[in-house]
Amino acid sequence: MAYFCDLKRMENKIKTFSKFGDAGHGGITRYALSKEDEMARDEFVKRMTAIGAKIEVDDLANMYATIEGSDPKAKRIVMGSHCDSVKNGGNYDGILGVMSAMEVLETVVEKKIPHKHPLTAMIWTNEEGSLYPPAIMTSGMVVYDYLPDNIKPSVEYNKMMASVNVLDGKTTYKEALSKFKYVGPKSNRLSRDKYVCNFETHIEQGPILEDAGNEIGVVDCVLGMFNYRLEFHGQTTHAGTFPMNKRRDALYAASLALIELHKKVDELGHPELVYTTGEIVCHPDVHTCVPDYVNFSLDVRHEDPKVLAKVLSIVKSFDGKEFAKCTCKVVPMWNRDTVYWDKNLVKFVKESCEELGVKHQYIHSGAGHDAQFVSYMLPTTMVFVQSKKGLSHCEEEYSDPKHCMLGASVMLNAVLKADKYYE
Amino acid sequence: MAYFCDLKRMENKIKTFSKFGDAGHGGITRYALSKEDEMARDEFVKRMTAIGAKIEVDDLANMYATIEGSDPKAKRIVMGSHCDSVKNGGNYDGILGVMSAMEVLETVVEKKIPHKHPLTAMIWTNEEGSLYPPAIMTSGMVVYDYLPDNIKPSVEYNKMMASVNVLDGKTTYKEALSKFKYVGPKSNRLSRDKYVCNFETHIEQGPILEDAGNEIGVVDCVLGMFNYRLEFHGQTTHAGTFPMNKRRDALYAASLALIELHKKVDELGHPELVYTTGEIVCHPDVHTCVPDYVNFSLDVRHEDPKVLAKVLSIVKSFDGKEFAKCTCKVVPMWNRDTVYWDKNLVKFVKESCEELGVKHQYIHSGAGHDAQFVSYMLPTTMVFVQSKKGLSHCEEEYSDPKHCMLGASVMLNAVLKADKYYE
Repeated sequence: MAYFCDLKRMENKIKTFSKFGDAGHGGITRYALSKEDEMARDEFVKRMTAIGAKIEVDDLANMYATIEGSDPKAKRIVMGSHCDSVKNGGNYDGILGVMSAMEVLETVVEKKIPHKHPLTAMIWTNEEGSLYPPAIMTSGMVVYDYLPDNIKPSVEYNKMMASVNVLDGKTTYKEALSKFKYVGPKSNRLSRDKYVCNFETHIEQGPILEDAGNEIGVVDCVLGMFNYRLEFHGQTTHAGTFPMNKRRDALYAASLALIELHKKVDELGHPELVYTTGEIVCHPDVHTCVPDYVNFSLDVRHEDPKVLAKVLSIVKSFDGKEFAKCTCKVVPMWNRDTVYWDKNLVKFVKESCEELGVKHQYIHSGAGHDAQFVSYMLPTTMVFVQSKKGLSHCEEEYSDPKHCMLGASVMLNAVLKADKYYE
Repeated sequence: MAYFCDLKRMENKIKTFSKFGDAGHGGITRYALSKEDEMARDEFVKRMTAIGAKIEVDDLANMYATIEGSDPKAKRIVMGSHCDSVKNGGNYDGILGVMSAMEVLETVVEKKIPHKHPLTAMIWTNEEGSLYPPAIMTSGMVVYDYLPDNIKPSVEYNKMMASVNVLDGKTTYKEALSKFKYVGPKSNRLSRDKYVCNFETHIEQGPILEDAGNEIGVVDCVLGMFNYRLEFHGQTTHAGTFPMNKRRDALYAASLALIELHKKVDELGHPELVYTTGEIVCHPDVHTCVPDYVNFSLDVRHEDPKVLAKVLSIVKSFDGKEFAKCTCKVVPMWNRDTVYWDKNLVKFVKESCEELGVKHQYIHSGAGHDAQFVSYMLPTTMVFVQSKKGLSHCEEEYSDPKHCMLGASVMLNAVLKADKYYE
């Protein structure tokens, strides 16, 4: 038997949570450990307590609301995502996964759906890392002991960053944590002792489902990626006094390199490959000075490590190369391998879509999520909900409430299948 | 008879003034109206008082040190430049013109050189506009009534900006002025009633003199210029989830436009033309987001308005054009016509070079200077001193002390010619 969640209740949650950090023009700014974050957690506690869930918090402010199952010895099935946002972000990224988990628990309680395992709705802290970079901070720290050796250093970096004064210039993540309303003992952290598997529902953040006319994505993996910086060193001179033929203009050099990079990567002919230069630094960045230093970011993602390797060899071929008399330096930042979800859980999500009559397809996750870290500790999978126009990390971000309800429904039925599958 | 200034005294001034704002690695940071600015002015007062000059200050903190001439009715001949710097600037830009004016007065007093007109060494306040933009602020305000109508609006902007909280986020130029040690009555301002002509010595800030083996430049004009911003509007999407063929990446678009602009402008084939993109704005400037907005500056300079017009028509042809599915918008910022110096004064500088046996050439000024505003009020000209490697607005900025002394000597002899020429 397949169960649907409640559209009106889901709509009500979307409307309510959109108030916590409302920026006044459609979206929200809700930084981790902020007053707005606290308001969202108050609402989480209020609604989960109302259905009889037990609330726990760990030492990193991750929150857990649990309803008991029929087997007192069974481990918990957890569903969750984050409730923090980027600056002027949307009302769905992250929080939809929390609301979907809440909706699953509410539906189970309301419809008295039998289940063996305790079910937990969870909030991860500081996934966006907007005020306290880097992103996906606490899930990495929680699962640290289970990470492969090549990933541990990046999480060591997360730990280090948690103690560093960052964007607001005065508060560290640890200091903000010490003043936050919801902090508990480390023993409450997600663990293999207490939990059996993990689900995360999230908006797609891309246009693939909408373009294909599908409501829900059955996610099979998080794409592998690498992240580099390309630096260009020139010479600052005065814009009015220095002849063109003697200039070493680092911004012009960077532009030439970016265009050449696009040309060479596009020639590889992989339509599923995505690569992005989103950030640029220019020094001294004064309109009357020829720039002497520019660097830009390069983020490249694809499922197949062989394709990534081909792109990487193009990127590396730029190292030491001259553009407009400026030398390019290629600096590696980080990379990750493609993370495949648990095959059984993916199958449960697929079957649930079929049983509910939801229009669906397999899809990769191009973005990173807390689930990708949790997958090293527990069997994990994700459910994607269609994003309007594929827009995300902006105030135009939107998902149809019906699709949001269907996402929660798919997760509910997949959880019930997992409930039967695991001891 | 031709007079030389004193090399040792000039070296001593360079060494002393380089201390006021010493950034510890060769250059200085000496913002207008700062403690460091005050120290430089204390030194100016000390040295000028020592030779019997009378010190005056106007309401904008511009300072005047005057020695009397033999004719009590004659108007003053003024020489000056600024003593503020950019951040981590050099020890010559601006302050060399002040030190050269001091050196002229010191030489005249020491050698008891006969002269009819009073001679004034002057400091202009806030030429760089580093802390209180825009640049060349107070000279524009002083000569306002003499400006042609097409230039007045930009100076109105200067006046408005003087009352606005700017870079340091809390102090306006006017507030800083109210707390500054050296402020006097408005009646002390430079005026046609009291002054007859104006000289400014400055470093070249380009490599032309050095490349030609010349010590001194006989400046004939300040190049005409125009300044535009090119804006590109795209769509922010997630770096990992949004297919390449649907993207509207504003940074990629801006790079394509910049390269095309360079190509088309270079095809005009004017080797003396200089154009610069020194500043770029990228939004949201996050490595995981496709940029939705980029703008960059474009600064174009040439003596001939017909050449500027040709470049401008290329720039304007970009307005409304699509680059990588992003629309380019061309926004005019400001422009100025080529300002020619007074022909007699230019001739006096040229003759002085010849009489002193200084290696020299005619040269245009690519950079703007206080002299360009003063030229609307008084006959004006400039003397350029060779810059090592053409570097300026950076700590590597350097001019040979001998060349600095020769610059002052050329100005001295040109001033003496003007002393004879004017009533």
